[in-house]
Amino acid sequence: MKAIILFGHGARDIRWREPFDRLAGLWRSQHPGIPVELAFLEMMQPSLEEAVAALAALGAKSITVVPVFFGQGGHLRNDFPALLKECQAQFTAVTLSATPAVGEDLAVLQAIVDFGARAL
Amino acid sequence: MKAIILFGHGARDIRWREPFDRLAGLWRSQHPGIPVELAFLEMMQPSLEEAVAALAALGAKSITVVPVFFGQGGHLRNDFPALLKECQAQFTAVTLSATPAVGEDLAVLQAIVDFGARAL
Repeated sequence: MKAIILFGHGARDIRWREPFDRLAGLWRSQHPGIPVELAFLEMMQPSLEEAVAALAALGAKSITVVPVFFGQGGHLRNDFPALLKECQAQFTAVTLSATPAVGEDLAVLQAIVDFGARAL
Repeated sequence: MKAIILFGHGARDIRWREPFDRLAGLWRSQHPGIPVELAFLEMMQPSLEEAVAALAALGAKSITVVPVFFGQGGHLRNDFPALLKECQAQFTAVTLSATPAVGEDLAVLQAIVDFGARAL
């Protein structure tokens, strides 16, 4: 079974996670056969490890981690690959893979441009 | 004249800004009559103040600031309004306004869901 993790930075303010909860809700309504978990690099739960554990417990064999970040800086170039490697070593029955950051996707950028244009 | 500022967090790694540069490029190609500047909260230039100054120098009278953030945490709820207020006090010939964070926009979230779905 495939599964997906939407991986964000995390923040002190609990309200910061609202769009992430909304993202997970959209995913569940549109892709009900593919379990989704949120995960956060810091300051919020669950961690990537906890999210992988939850999906593995559901029977996921292949998990794609989508970094919900705009830019690919130190967090995604250094912290994230190390974290992913640790998780892969810990959960040997699961195959973990990762996409580029969502900010690399032209359709995501176009949606931001359109949002700005509507606001003028 | 209207203008727009795409306002991001900033990061140490210069490559983090690549999607922001791409966003500004998309804006320029699609909305050539509405000048755009990037601005960053920290660790990258230009600052919001510098971006407002640049657009005011071009003749902008009304500037919309679009926070290119997912969640609305402390940065957007506290730091950003204070910064915007300071800029407004400094540039009295310009009317500054701000949109919610782009992560509040359903079309942006949908583009992220679609990106994840294509990656599976």
